[in-house]
Amino acid sequence: MAKFTINKNMIQLGNVRSVIRETFEYGNKRAKEIGRENVFDFSLGNPSVPPPECVRDTMLNLLQNGDQMKLHSYTSAQGAEATREKIAQNINERYNAGIDKNDIYMTCGAAASLTISINALACAGDEFIVIAPFFPEYRVFVEAAGAKLAVVDADTENFQIDFEKLKNTLSAKTKAVIINTPNNPSGVVLSEDTIKKLCTILKEESKKRGEPIYLISDEPYRELVYDDNTVVPYITNYYDNTLVCYSYSKSLSLPGERIGYVAVCNKMENNRDVYAAVCGAGRALGFVCAPSMMQQVVIESLGKTSDLTIYKTNRDILYKSLTEYGYECVYPDGAFYLFVKSPESDANAFCNKAREFDLLLVPSDSFGCPGYVRIAYCVTTEMIKRSLPAFKKLAEYYGK
Amino acid sequence: MAKFTINKNMIQLGNVRSVIRETFEYGNKRAKEIGRENVFDFSLGNPSVPPPECVRDTMLNLLQNGDQMKLHSYTSAQGAEATREKIAQNINERYNAGIDKNDIYMTCGAAASLTISINALACAGDEFIVIAPFFPEYRVFVEAAGAKLAVVDADTENFQIDFEKLKNTLSAKTKAVIINTPNNPSGVVLSEDTIKKLCTILKEESKKRGEPIYLISDEPYRELVYDDNTVVPYITNYYDNTLVCYSYSKSLSLPGERIGYVAVCNKMENNRDVYAAVCGAGRALGFVCAPSMMQQVVIESLGKTSDLTIYKTNRDILYKSLTEYGYECVYPDGAFYLFVKSPESDANAFCNKAREFDLLLVPSDSFGCPGYVRIAYCVTTEMIKRSLPAFKKLAEYYGK
Repeated sequence: MAKFTINKNMIQLGNVRSVIRETFEYGNKRAKEIGRENVFDFSLGNPSVPPPECVRDTMLNLLQNGDQMKLHSYTSAQGAEATREKIAQNINERYNAGIDKNDIYMTCGAAASLTISINALACAGDEFIVIAPFFPEYRVFVEAAGAKLAVVDADTENFQIDFEKLKNTLSAKTKAVIINTPNNPSGVVLSEDTIKKLCTILKEESKKRGEPIYLISDEPYRELVYDDNTVVPYITNYYDNTLVCYSYSKSLSLPGERIGYVAVCNKMENNRDVYAAVCGAGRALGFVCAPSMMQQVVIESLGKTSDLTIYKTNRDILYKSLTEYGYECVYPDGAFYLFVKSPESDANAFCNKAREFDLLLVPSDSFGCPGYVRIAYCVTTEMIKRSLPAFKKLAEYYGK
Repeated sequence: MAKFTINKNMIQLGNVRSVIRETFEYGNKRAKEIGRENVFDFSLGNPSVPPPECVRDTMLNLLQNGDQMKLHSYTSAQGAEATREKIAQNINERYNAGIDKNDIYMTCGAAASLTISINALACAGDEFIVIAPFFPEYRVFVEAAGAKLAVVDADTENFQIDFEKLKNTLSAKTKAVIINTPNNPSGVVLSEDTIKKLCTILKEESKKRGEPIYLISDEPYRELVYDDNTVVPYITNYYDNTLVCYSYSKSLSLPGERIGYVAVCNKMENNRDVYAAVCGAGRALGFVCAPSMMQQVVIESLGKTSDLTIYKTNRDILYKSLTEYGYECVYPDGAFYLFVKSPESDANAFCNKAREFDLLLVPSDSFGCPGYVRIAYCVTTEMIKRSLPAFKKLAEYYGK
């Protein structure tokens, strides 16, 4: 009998269906039984508002008036110079960050930004630290790069960072800390105070070791904040050894088009080596260049976003109603997630109970912070309103 | 002093400029000195004919009449079902290959198809065999997956496969053989006879070992053949353990848009495991889904290509003229490359001499087959005609 010794990790990664995907598929099945309008699917983090008009206008203009060959040609591996230049300029105008066009490497979206950054840095035996709750794919990306994931348990008080736990997790093996703010799944923004404390600790630890600990800032939700006083600190202004991983998937509602970038902090001492390693990792992983037409679309959309007021409306209705019904909710500064404490300790059991009311929620276990559920409110406001009685009944079932 | 222990391989990959890129950049510099029309740059394999009209028409239609949110949404990780279904159907109509939609995994182009296939299969200690001359990035992709590249030296007689050398290179460590037909850089198509012999050897060796050797068929140039009697065999019809890596970069002149696929042969004994590993590798490397709009563009372009007659015209003029001038050229069945024997043993020296005539050619050393130059004839026919006197003078310099 034949042996089949292909990569077992990859088979497993391909076969294991995420609980998010499973919930979404259950929703599709259930919609066929009782009608789409009666299923309240809060499982997927997929933008629910169309791209801003400038996206379509730019594409139509390029197709009607542009050189059709040049439009779809390879750009240089790090991205078209004009694209990198304008993005750097826009970052500097907003954050005075001193980013140069040669610090920007255009990518096929946030996942690519992360795998490229991680593979650029990782050496055998390295650890990458994440702060719970965290996006589950971080584990996949870090382990595929031959490194180890180390988890700092959640600060369930404020969903900032438990610095004692962080200090205990830092070690001589730590290559980088990955942060994600606004956060998926909690919706929380790390405060300036938190960022300053984090950076102080990392600087001290780097100095002690005589080599830098890097900070990878995963920022696909940067633009998605809803209160005037919410500030999302620009990390390179606090810490030189920062790589910013950005994506236009959420801000421009273009998740399928795969466009984003890595920005390597200009003040990083070994900036040129790290940038070269980013280019090298992009090459080694099979990213030849970021999609060429989208590179032109994003520069015509700088400073613009989809209509984010819809997410704010959704957030406000949902947060107000759910807290009224007796649920314990983390206050969501941004992204499009509400993180709600499960009324029973087993969040999976709670999600199963919620399904009886056709509320499709995602248990928090895979985010490294059990006992909560994630509600993705990137849905229509009308569905949110229709779902409220179900949330109320569910609360009543739990004696709220 | 601080140590910087980031990934040295990645720094090197990012810093080392390929000879192709270096030649191209020399050309741009030289064009500023003597005028673009006086530089004969044959360095880059970048399509020189526009996409077929259906590409623009489809995009305009989608932008003017489609649901703008759905158009740019995530598809499932393996690609939209409709896209996979129609591609499978098209393959089966042309090659009767028995490919199912669930054997197709949409990718961000040929490089992604390759890194995903290699990472899906590779276990520690594995070897991947390539046949010289070969695309230099194969080495980068294989080594980044933690495996080793083993090279079968070129059959410089016919640029098919030297089977004695292949047999000597096969070992218990061989996980797969990578073939590329039509070939970059030789332009040669592997004949049906060659494919049959190759498959017989691989079947015998697989049987002896009790586990399969896989065949990875890298086919971005499949559509680019110019003689009526040239047949490019569809490999899954000869060998069950085949993964086909396809890209639309050349056939539709869309290299910047990053769209292609992996097709896992339906008759592969462990087809479901290999397909799962392909999905897993795509996930681990950071490919979330292939660009969504392009997934819709390619299904409206099935069976269509850019105007390839221009490449045929270029090939015919160049091959006829260069052989007349006394150059020894491999007969190029397809792709858009002419592989010419260097008149002196050192192809680098020959390329430097050619630069004196403003002919920019690429030496073959990095393709694993020293002593040749690659001429990429994806340029204007007019430039080819203007370059002929320079080629003639260069031949005369070498006493031809």
